[in-house]
Amino acid sequence: MKHYLSIDDLKQPHSAIEQALQLKTNPLQNSGLGKGKTLILLFFNNSLRTRLSTAKAAQNLGLDVLSLNVGADSWQLEFTDGTIMDQGKAEHIREAVPVLCQYGDLIGLRSFGELQSLEEDLREPVLEAFKALSDKPLINLESAFAHPLQALADAMTLQETFGSTKPKITLSWAPHPRPLPQAVPTSFLRMMKTLGADIQVCHPPGYELNAALTEGIEVRSDQAACLAESDVVYAKSWCSTEQYGQHLPIEESWTISLEKLKEAYFMHCLPVRRNVVVQDAVLDSSKSLVIEQANNRTYSAQWVLQELLKSKEL
Amino acid sequence: MKHYLSIDDLKQPHSAIEQALQLKTNPLQNSGLGKGKTLILLFFNNSLRTRLSTAKAAQNLGLDVLSLNVGADSWQLEFTDGTIMDQGKAEHIREAVPVLCQYGDLIGLRSFGELQSLEEDLREPVLEAFKALSDKPLINLESAFAHPLQALADAMTLQETFGSTKPKITLSWAPHPRPLPQAVPTSFLRMMKTLGADIQVCHPPGYELNAALTEGIEVRSDQAACLAESDVVYAKSWCSTEQYGQHLPIEESWTISLEKLKEAYFMHCLPVRRNVVVQDAVLDSSKSLVIEQANNRTYSAQWVLQELLKSKEL
Amino acid sequence: MKHYLSIDDLKQPHSAIEQALQLKTNPLQNSGLGKGKTLILLFFNNSLRTRLSTAKAAQNLGLDVLSLNVGADSWQLEFTDGTIMDQGKAEHIREAVPVLCQYGDLIGLRSFGELQSLEEDLREPVLEAFKALSDKPLINLESAFAHPLQALADAMTLQETFGSTKPKITLSWAPHPRPLPQAVPTSFLRMMKTLGADIQVCHPPGYELNAALTEGIEVRSDQAACLAESDVVYAKSWCSTEQYGQHLPIEESWTISLEKLKEAYFMHCLPVRRNVVVQDAVLDSSKSLVIEQANNRTYSAQWVLQELLKSKEL
Repeated sequence: MKHYLSIDDLKQPHSAIEQALQLKTNPLQNSGLGKGKTLILLFFNNSLRTRLSTAKAAQNLGLDVLSLNVGADSWQLEFTDGTIMDQGKAEHIREAVPVLCQYGDLIGLRSFGELQSLEEDLREPVLEAFKALSDKPLINLESAFAHPLQALADAMTLQETFGSTKPKITLSWAPHPRPLPQAVPTSFLRMMKTLGADIQVCHPPGYELNAALTEGIEVRSDQAACLAESDVVYAKSWCSTEQYGQHLPIEESWTISLEKLKEAYFMHCLPVRRNVVVQDAVLDSSKSLVIEQANNRTYSAQWVLQELLKSKEL
Repeated sequence: MKHYLSIDDLKQPHSAIEQALQLKTNPLQNSGLGKGKTLILLFFNNSLRTRLSTAKAAQNLGLDVLSLNVGADSWQLEFTDGTIMDQGKAEHIREAVPVLCQYGDLIGLRSFGELQSLEEDLREPVLEAFKALSDKPLINLESAFAHPLQALADAMTLQETFGSTKPKITLSWAPHPRPLPQAVPTSFLRMMKTLGADIQVCHPPGYELNAALTEGIEVRSDQAACLAESDVVYAKSWCSTEQYGQHLPIEESWTISLEKLKEAYFMHCLPVRRNVVVQDAVLDSSKSLVIEQANNRTYSAQWVLQELLKSKEL
Repeated sequence: MKHYLSIDDLKQPHSAIEQALQLKTNPLQNSGLGKGKTLILLFFNNSLRTRLSTAKAAQNLGLDVLSLNVGADSWQLEFTDGTIMDQGKAEHIREAVPVLCQYGDLIGLRSFGELQSLEEDLREPVLEAFKALSDKPLINLESAFAHPLQALADAMTLQETFGSTKPKITLSWAPHPRPLPQAVPTSFLRMMKTLGADIQVCHPPGYELNAALTEGIEVRSDQAACLAESDVVYAKSWCSTEQYGQHLPIEESWTISLEKLKEAYFMHCLPVRRNVVVQDAVLDSSKSLVIEQANNRTYSAQWVLQELLKSKEL
């Protein structure tokens, strides 16, 4: 593995899940692997779980960690080639990335989509720019259309909960006060397809995910029926595809409730808007897996860091 | 000791002071105690001494430290149960705290009072919410009504300065351009009572501290007379209790001066407003203990971390 | 070496360059030297290279690093003696510096000039205030008129590029959308003079650097002719000295181009405004040394930290 930018970088996803769960049983088993090496974590956006779990994973491996809030700590970065840089952005990534690659042995990068243009966000301009310029392994800490550390942790949680049985999974759209990126549902769905999971998607009309991604997957709009027949429901809000990035009224009828879930487990990547995305009663019940999903973030990150440290490229 | 939230968590305060002072003689004596464990420091408010001294104490014990400015680094947190989270706050502490407890072995927390309502601040809503949800030891890095790391460092400083003799102490209110919380005077007074110190309090009318706290302690309003008879004066501004949290004119006559202090030592928790709280001449004299108080913050924190690491609960 | 505040603190600059380049061949050769000691990095201004390379250098030596954004993380600092502190600044450096010196074994400090008054900035008020109050070694991470870590890295880069031959160097002013400090050109020129380099300076009228500094150095205003006869060109924008700190129109004719450079190498401290300071074609060519200059920041910092750790004063 050269980089960890999307689920496609997981050559053997089943094995990755098993190994990550094994790491969880003894997190310090490879505590010397990263000694004398540095992980740089770059945040263009806020972060709690990713910031802390990735740093913790790195420390478990003996890596030094340097975190940087781009802009607040350092300089605003320019991404466009050929620009006359006479405005607010002080540094071009054509300098910043090679420089960072000299200070870090591994680079983690969080940069959400701008939600201004679907085409632009699908291009993953920040991630691709870093990839083109970096000679060090990159770890995607959530980009416009991918959150692969989350998806690996999600798969670990499903494995822990259901073992060898194959649950019926629904990925359900949920309401939210703000338009949100499609990174989490995209990576989760890609992971589930890769694993051959039994999954369906439900969302209101206009919220279609990428057509290539949902090919071969049943997509429905009758949430109550979908949830009632599921063993586990992964809820997530994402913005409209048709009216990409626009603020639309909250569709309260899509809020997840215990009544809709019946016996199904509940998953969400967090942070979650209580009583908008999902009712308190769900999160406070024994059917909620959200805290364990967050716990598994440490070990999905640790597995990724280990693989990158071990790979010949480093 | 399960948590360190207030002076009440100090079961043997005299012994704590002695042990913390012994740590100061050789800070690296237990440098392997925290190996492989992580301290998370959460800041809802600014910090210099607490941020650095607590991190330094942790490093002396071999702990990894992850610091987070809540809001700026991560998400705004919602504390109210049952809220429909359709406004600015993205994450509820009912998720955040259990998640943090998975990443950290110990959690430090700074959250000042809002100064909007005395009753609300006395409830310690942030501290209590964390306590109710945390299964890891919590360290109070200053809450609405307690700053117990400071009070332990203050007691250490008194012990170093006066040894076995029993000084006459005055806790004196002092002026300030802004209304300030009552955390420092409350914890200092609680500590002094616990130690059986010879202490009196002086403040202008309307600035009464908690009645249960000052029970059995002489409370006066004649500052000059109080200071003149003291061996040591602990100065601190706090907001009015009668007009809680309100901005009132600066009472310049209460500024501490060398003339008022006569031979007494001077203490303050810092940061201090020069020539408002206290005159330059006091801080620049050999009678000022403020720098040593700050120094002792490292060892009061280190003692607390050690106790929590050693306790069976961890 | 007691502090590293300017090039004047380098008693044997040739030896420093050789030793720093030797460190680069095996950065972990002294990985135990800083064990149990702490480097505090204080930032009054943004930073990417300095923040990361200095932290990396410290980690190579086994130092613990605590970084603080002054103001955002802690409190606004007051520098003026005798002030009645009833405004926005909560802490005076007369407390802050002695306190920091108790928590850190070494203190790094970045504080740009205010660009309001040439006389005031030449006084280096922040650096001098810290120096007067600090009993720990200080490292200048860029002050109003000095950036000596950069200048040492620059000298290393010249040594790597030209070996024992003596290149003809031009320090050329360059345009920029904002008025910038004179720290980098000042330290670079001081370093080059100390090394006995063959250097000339070119800038438009009104941008004269300190007269004592340029004494004995040819100062010209015909950029094209200067560049054409150079082996290496160090470009940097700095604000007018005559109209100190004022925003003036961008002088596009001074932008560095491949045509002007002919065969000369190109240096800049970064961040650089592409197509304002210098054209893309220069930075993207094999003649650009800017990425290696940034790389050498780690080893110039590591050499400085080592010297300070080894000095008797610590």
